[in-house]
Amino acid sequence: MYRKEFMAMANEEAKANVNGSDGGPFGCVIIKDGKVVSRAHNQVLVDHDPTAHGEITAIRKAGQALGTHDLTGCELYTSAMPCPMCLSAIIWANIKQVYYGNTADDAAAIGFRDAAIYDFINAGLKGDMLALTQHDRELTIGAFKDYQSAQKKLY
Amino acid sequence: MYRKEFMAMANEEAKANVNGSDGGPFGCVIIKDGKVVSRAHNQVLVDHDPTAHGEITAIRKAGQALGTHDLTGCELYTSAMPCPMCLSAIIWANIKQVYYGNTADDAAAIGFRDAAIYDFINAGLKGDMLALTQHDRELTIGAFKDYQSAQKKLY
Repeated sequence: MYRKEFMAMANEEAKANVNGSDGGPFGCVIIKDGKVVSRAHNQVLVDHDPTAHGEITAIRKAGQALGTHDLTGCELYTSAMPCPMCLSAIIWANIKQVYYGNTADDAAAIGFRDAAIYDFINAGLKGDMLALTQHDRELTIGAFKDYQSAQKKLY
Repeated sequence: MYRKEFMAMANEEAKANVNGSDGGPFGCVIIKDGKVVSRAHNQVLVDHDPTAHGEITAIRKAGQALGTHDLTGCELYTSAMPCPMCLSAIIWANIKQVYYGNTADDAAAIGFRDAAIYDFINAGLKGDMLALTQHDRELTIGAFKDYQSAQKKLY
């Protein structure tokens, strides 16, 4: 169930970057059983890490706090609609509920590319954003087959 | 221009996880000006980090090596088609060329969810994979407006 106090906390994280210079104005809080597991903001600039969005940083911290890559049972509050990177990270983490404040259009309005990346994916990865070409599958398929044969963990 | 030696290197990283237990059978190499900037494999299990896919880990290492979040001019070799998280991270990093070995169908065939996440995004985020609900935009929009007013960096 949505609780405004946690959105206010995510917003405080976002505001920290308006006054500071760690990265963009995006903050995130992860909750489990009504308690804060982690809180974080975008650290792309300070960490030299283009993946350090607020949600990714909060997920990493939550994984450390709980000692697992599996955040089943957690809820995520974010000050803005997740970009496709963060949305997918949330799914990989097995989080099932996201509450967000600002929309993807709001992010586009101040110049961020979230909506454009969704458009690229929805267009079937066609366009000039990124070129992807497939090569030498016969070289790489062995690792997949061997992993499957070893019945290793899927996540 | 594609060079098989770098795909072989990405494949060696992937194979390290067939023999070891850091995470899934996925490896990645980032190249700039014909030289290796970083190489990495999936570390989801060992790092308790659901975001530590091969591509993400390689991007983080490249950011550290080059001292910037902007990997313009780099090319990325990955042993398998990037999932939507990694695809978006590559775009955020300003990498423009990806060479991959195994396909998304190959990953699905051994049980990974890459293709299912693409399907969820392409379906307009409809389905039972994740619930996203929007709340309290009037609380969060201030950070966006203030960030824009301050003419801070976009990336």
